[in-house]
Amino acid sequence: MIMNIILIEPAEINGNQVTLQDRRADHIRNILKSAEGDTIRIGLINGDRGQGLVTEINDQKINLTINIDQDRLTAPLTDLILALPRPIMLKRILTQAAIIGVNHIFLINANRVEKSFFNSSLLMADNYRKRLLNGLEQAGDTRIPQLSIHSRFRPFIEDVVPGLAPKWQTRLIAHPRAQNSLATISPLPLTDRTVLAIGPEGGWVDFELDKFKEQGFNTFSMGPRILKVDTAVTALLAQLDLLRQLPS
Amino acid sequence: MIMNIILIEPAEINGNQVTLQDRRADHIRNILKSAEGDTIRIGLINGDRGQGLVTEINDQKINLTINIDQDRLTAPLTDLILALPRPIMLKRILTQAAIIGVNHIFLINANRVEKSFFNSSLLMADNYRKRLLNGLEQAGDTRIPQLSIHSRFRPFIEDVVPGLAPKWQTRLIAHPRAQNSLATISPLPLTDRTVLAIGPEGGWVDFELDKFKEQGFNTFSMGPRILKVDTAVTALLAQLDLLRQLPS
Repeated sequence: MIMNIILIEPAEINGNQVTLQDRRADHIRNILKSAEGDTIRIGLINGDRGQGLVTEINDQKINLTINIDQDRLTAPLTDLILALPRPIMLKRILTQAAIIGVNHIFLINANRVEKSFFNSSLLMADNYRKRLLNGLEQAGDTRIPQLSIHSRFRPFIEDVVPGLAPKWQTRLIAHPRAQNSLATISPLPLTDRTVLAIGPEGGWVDFELDKFKEQGFNTFSMGPRILKVDTAVTALLAQLDLLRQLPS
Repeated sequence: MIMNIILIEPAEINGNQVTLQDRRADHIRNILKSAEGDTIRIGLINGDRGQGLVTEINDQKINLTINIDQDRLTAPLTDLILALPRPIMLKRILTQAAIIGVNHIFLINANRVEKSFFNSSLLMADNYRKRLLNGLEQAGDTRIPQLSIHSRFRPFIEDVVPGLAPKWQTRLIAHPRAQNSLATISPLPLTDRTVLAIGPEGGWVDFELDKFKEQGFNTFSMGPRILKVDTAVTALLAQLDLLRQLPS
């Protein structure tokens, strides 16, 4: 993965000094091939962006003097509800979603989710956080998407969603056999905070669809082609992004 | 990869009988877990779709009696010009592009393309065809995107593009530092045959951009986030697809 920005934890900063010794140092040495006196793009995790001046570089460590500007990307307006996919696919999805930009990812259970997926070590915070950081480093963003795991469908749809629904003016759910397309059911342009729900490989079951509809979700179909879940996530987040750019 | 359709070469058909012994047979046995008397979705490569009745199934082979009774998907209206990416990324891109749907892929040289990429075995027809077929099998499509390789930029832009330009009513080129967004420069809705050009990781050089502009290409930016090329291909093909669905 390419790091278009070097992300730094606020706790790593001492005054305006940072010492790097991990994969970020490897990247600066081997990919950026930086030398003393060079500046590189840096960002504070969940904070602003700026420049790092390389003041010392050797095989053990790299010292940076950093300068933070009042500059971060605007927060994405889309939340993603995703039926938990198999770990190898989730890994890709987390990075892709962080590249394209998403505010909050809800990983949920559904009838056609294999229960064993909830035992994946990828669901440990340290592990999924790495994948999200990889995406931010590529995108040049600093804000880590929120992520929450909901291993039971009913408590999620009956308790969590009603609490959040008022802030989601637009609520969308992808379903292969739906009548309408995204362009038909979305406001044009899309300006609101939006939530997008994407089902498991086999699709949602009727009970789940009904529950989402009760919460004001509109179903749409992605057309006659059958997408993999990871392709669908990237494609739909990109399409929502485009809907936000349409002239009013 | 999931096969949502089993693709068959017309030359494999004898009357209405087909015998499968390769990875398609493995898929029918191990993933679909089909038995004699079951029907499965099949399609003729570059032809129509239908069902295959499993008449015999054992460890060596599977016999199908096929019935072609369903139209093929409509042909995608978008062509993709792509500065040749590194092979590992191209592999993913070919499958993803075939899933989302693309008519013709032109893999071209550019200043920031590593010349060694043109030596990749993935550029041999048998190899890239496999990746495209994987995508079609996922999507449920039968039509293999055309693919051509152009190892010199100038002959491509000066000779090939002018010959094709009349059929591309809309000509788009992604460039990080462009002023406009896709939604600003595209016809709304998009109805035309369209060509989309995507550059190498480091972007197009000015000479290349100027050459595309001379051929009527409009530049657009994908916004402040820096996408990987594979993410950009999926995102942009999906966005063009959405632009085609907008109400007029």
